[in-house]
Amino acid sequence: MRKSIATVTLSGTLEEKLTAAAQVGFDGVEIFESDLVNCASSPAQVRRRAEDLGLRIELYQPFRDFEAVPSAALARNLRRAERKFQLINDLGADLLLVCSNVSPAATDDDALAADQLHQLAEQAARHGIRIAYEALAWGRYVSDYLHAWRIVQAADHPNLGLCLDSFHILSRPVDPGGLRGVPGEKVFFLQLADAPRMHLDVLQWSRHYRCFPGQGGFDLTGLLEAVFATGYQGPLSLEVFNDVFRQADAERTATDGMRSLLTLEDSLRQRLEVPLRAGQHGRHLELQELPPPVELTGFAFVELAVDPLSEMAAERLLEELGFARVGRHRSKPVQMWQQGDARVLLNRTHPDAGGWHRGDVRASAIAVESPDPARSAERAEALLAAPIPRTHGPGEADLTAVAAPDGTSVFFCRTDARDGTGWLGDFHPLTVPDDSGPRGITGIDHIALSQPSYSFDEATLFYQSVFGLRQRDSEEVADPYGLVRSRAMAGTGNRLRLVLNVPLLGGGQLPETAALQHVAFACPDIFATARRMRARGLPTLPIPTNYYDDLAARMELDASLLEAMREHEVLYDRNEGGGFFHFYTVMLGRRVFFEVVQRLGDYDGYGAVNTPVRMAAQYLAMAGVT
Amino acid sequence: MRKSIATVTLSGTLEEKLTAAAQVGFDGVEIFESDLVNCASSPAQVRRRAEDLGLRIELYQPFRDFEAVPSAALARNLRRAERKFQLINDLGADLLLVCSNVSPAATDDDALAADQLHQLAEQAARHGIRIAYEALAWGRYVSDYLHAWRIVQAADHPNLGLCLDSFHILSRPVDPGGLRGVPGEKVFFLQLADAPRMHLDVLQWSRHYRCFPGQGGFDLTGLLEAVFATGYQGPLSLEVFNDVFRQADAERTATDGMRSLLTLEDSLRQRLEVPLRAGQHGRHLELQELPPPVELTGFAFVELAVDPLSEMAAERLLEELGFARVGRHRSKPVQMWQQGDARVLLNRTHPDAGGWHRGDVRASAIAVESPDPARSAERAEALLAAPIPRTHGPGEADLTAVAAPDGTSVFFCRTDARDGTGWLGDFHPLTVPDDSGPRGITGIDHIALSQPSYSFDEATLFYQSVFGLRQRDSEEVADPYGLVRSRAMAGTGNRLRLVLNVPLLGGGQLPETAALQHVAFACPDIFATARRMRARGLPTLPIPTNYYDDLAARMELDASLLEAMREHEVLYDRNEGGGFFHFYTVMLGRRVFFEVVQRLGDYDGYGAVNTPVRMAAQYLAMAGVT
Repeated sequence: MRKSIATVTLSGTLEEKLTAAAQVGFDGVEIFESDLVNCASSPAQVRRRAEDLGLRIELYQPFRDFEAVPSAALARNLRRAERKFQLINDLGADLLLVCSNVSPAATDDDALAADQLHQLAEQAARHGIRIAYEALAWGRYVSDYLHAWRIVQAADHPNLGLCLDSFHILSRPVDPGGLRGVPGEKVFFLQLADAPRMHLDVLQWSRHYRCFPGQGGFDLTGLLEAVFATGYQGPLSLEVFNDVFRQADAERTATDGMRSLLTLEDSLRQRLEVPLRAGQHGRHLELQELPPPVELTGFAFVELAVDPLSEMAAERLLEELGFARVGRHRSKPVQMWQQGDARVLLNRTHPDAGGWHRGDVRASAIAVESPDPARSAERAEALLAAPIPRTHGPGEADLTAVAAPDGTSVFFCRTDARDGTGWLGDFHPLTVPDDSGPRGITGIDHIALSQPSYSFDEATLFYQSVFGLRQRDSEEVADPYGLVRSRAMAGTGNRLRLVLNVPLLGGGQLPETAALQHVAFACPDIFATARRMRARGLPTLPIPTNYYDDLAARMELDASLLEAMREHEVLYDRNEGGGFFHFYTVMLGRRVFFEVVQRLGDYDGYGAVNTPVRMAAQYLAMAGVT
Repeated sequence: MRKSIATVTLSGTLEEKLTAAAQVGFDGVEIFESDLVNCASSPAQVRRRAEDLGLRIELYQPFRDFEAVPSAALARNLRRAERKFQLINDLGADLLLVCSNVSPAATDDDALAADQLHQLAEQAARHGIRIAYEALAWGRYVSDYLHAWRIVQAADHPNLGLCLDSFHILSRPVDPGGLRGVPGEKVFFLQLADAPRMHLDVLQWSRHYRCFPGQGGFDLTGLLEAVFATGYQGPLSLEVFNDVFRQADAERTATDGMRSLLTLEDSLRQRLEVPLRAGQHGRHLELQELPPPVELTGFAFVELAVDPLSEMAAERLLEELGFARVGRHRSKPVQMWQQGDARVLLNRTHPDAGGWHRGDVRASAIAVESPDPARSAERAEALLAAPIPRTHGPGEADLTAVAAPDGTSVFFCRTDARDGTGWLGDFHPLTVPDDSGPRGITGIDHIALSQPSYSFDEATLFYQSVFGLRQRDSEEVADPYGLVRSRAMAGTGNRLRLVLNVPLLGGGQLPETAALQHVAFACPDIFATARRMRARGLPTLPIPTNYYDDLAARMELDASLLEAMREHEVLYDRNEGGGFFHFYTVMLGRRVFFEVVQRLGDYDGYGAVNTPVRMAAQYLAMAGVT
């Protein structure tokens, strides 16, 4: 399929937008009128620039408030169109999007609309131009694609067809199944956007909150299937009005958009596989194939970047948590700590990196277990994840790493491999962990990573497409100094759980806890584990005593249980599935802390109800309140 | 009236919130449960701190999902309440807010609700506590105050009354007139919040977009009148859930809130004046009186801070615009330029101030014409505008200045005063402006000031209450690198017009044009003015030629007019009222530019439709595109 993007989706001047679209491999663009009006290049210069970049100008848009108007207005509108046809010719394009009339001057008269659109198409034909008529969800009289299709049928002109826009179709309670009656050659263009489900005025929703396919709540694969069943052969074009994208780096947004289209195409290919073989659908489709996803089975390790000062702090905290130092890297200043299946690597860096404060710690890499690391990496790179070049000594594993949108390195590993793709051999073994005693930490339950607010949806799509995680609804948690948005994501069987956090608003002074990262370790018995850790001297995060009074009022817990929770600073949550005990360590540096959790029954959350008290407690600790 | 604020309205820990509320003069607070739960002080410590600060704890909230439940749940809920009553006693408070049940466990049974609330009130009475029952707009069965009132009547307990919340009342299509049937002693508490009119799910609307009275679209004066007509004697309490306030400085937000309450109280006092005399309403009311507003009649001057480098640039640009240097300050490095009634002061500062780049220019002060500057200043200070201490030489005018929320100094002047309050005498006259030739600039049409995004509503309220300006709807304009929100405000007869601009989103790289400030000068004949300015060498902002092609398509303008517009980089807008011609100068420093405008007929806008092309053109000029 040809891939296109509307210039309004990207930030910058028209010339910057074209450059970004070409850079990430789009075949074409829709030119949005205001981008052209405001730019310093003439239409002919834009045409040449697009040609130089290998971009086709698929469509010019929008032409508004044309049809179903009184005759004097029609004459004016046709003169207005004539000027735009000349411009489209100068651009070397041949398709104009006309959206359904929203002005009070329009009348509710389909025959008149059809007649006037026929006249427009006739005039367009003289310039070799076709008209794609689109029902805006807030059109004055024409607001769904079936209505637009009836008018296009009545107008009956070869140069008049439909523009389908997934937002306008899926934001309304209209069945996309109605597309079955539309012949593919009358679908002139297909615009794609997703959106989170919101109870908001549809115009505001469309203008501010659209996002790329996969980032919202619409079934775009289903819509695509219906559109391709018509025989549509045009491009897939992203048309996304999004406040964040308008402000973000254009190439970054374009990459995000291309990743979204590749994932969508791949999911359609998977869904159509049987019908394709049966020859019913999509014979004409050339669907790009991605390396198939590999189910990830857990975390292999998390790597913390430390400096010589924080390295000592991290070692102590890991010891107190019961970890043992099990290895030292053969060629790099990296040590490995382990307890159960939880592995933490400490990678000593030098404190002269940008923005690094002495004593800082950062979660710099996560490694996930893949039965086929090479194929996982191949899929990640096909999905435009940036590969990270790495050096490795002779005989060491050649782990493939890609960069997540927040800059975290992501490794795909097979820890138990004995065939050379394993990575444990890169470490000189130091201690064999002593598993004979009572079980403490058994593995990594989840990892929480902070994101810059402008890349929240981008990061979600990345982990969705590259890791195959499913997103859950995002929730807002109240930090004392602002709201933080948090989104949990999990793989099959919850073997891999990630939480992404961002400040809800970007302006003013950001809540600092939104920038924290943490690793949560699973254990089978929180109080026994806490007692042993305390005996080793572990400093836990002090929880305000009011929390336990409130918990007692809310939950009617057993007094001795409550006492144990108070003693060990353990927090609690429960829902229909089960319960959740958890406690936190103090901060390691300024950005990282650890959590120890115990899940009871089928509890599937992350104790988000307790996040505000944790955040408040972290500020109290930062300020030295005891 | 006592004035109170809910702790959830302010940012920070509970202790910080109490300090901020006391600092700006609130009499009391509502304590929001999570603020107490997350804080490091025990309830008794909070009580002592509030006492030390002179704050009364007016109410504790919220107690949720209590009424109309099966009997087992009732027993649990009463035990839960018992714990909260002890806590409220420890806080030294005596009022608990119970909001209408939202849980699926609730039943639609008013008699049951009344019976259970009676039991709760009886139990509360034993602790000397009263219950204020509030209908949440999204309550499962009880969602309006009249329904809540019927239940309170049926429950019939002296310790049970209503909590009225302006958001829950005014967000729904319910007439506040129904309050006439409610006796004032059964209104236990009144919470106030405003909100912009939005088509959004009411829960989301309430939780994120509430604002202070006067910042939104509700008729709070009318509601207040209805509530006081019942005989209500309790406090006015601000309860505002707002994403920006959560992140802003608490004392700044508290000041904004207090200014809002003072303005609201004053507007109620004005409205009630006649009934008060007639003794019908409000005998019990002690309404604070502000110095009455003085109608401002225009701009006296705008002051630009320049450094020695940009001073020269500003002088040249003013000369090219046709201004004459008419005065030099007797004791300060300030020169005055004038044309018609437009005066621009250049105040030479030294380029070592924080954030100042060599060659910068800032609009540092605006001066407005008041028939009674002393009374204007008195009102501003009563509304908590921060006075700016100024030195003045012997015999010089003692102009009162206050700081606007963005830091701009605001002067109230009476330029034509001959009684010593005039300020022109502070300047040595240099030139008498030559008014014999054709008229050029006649005055200041409007001034546009950029605001930090977190103080947009604060700035609006400031200019509304202190200047008496009316706000118009805000609009979003598309800068190439992000959306900018723009709000026009105007005084009576449009003699004073201000435009406030902020970036719509705070995160990522902000659109730089959102930080620009500009002064628009009025002229009676744009083309004659432009020609004379060009003859003097004025560099105007180059407008992309595509703009004129598009304008021709949209407007069908006369070819010679269009030619003149192209030649002079003049932009155009029109609406039902009339038309608007305008052009821009190049930038002066990095933040300031000038505009020259001509209004035709009753055109009342600011040419916002052309703002995107202006912004795009400014980036092109910055980058050196010619």
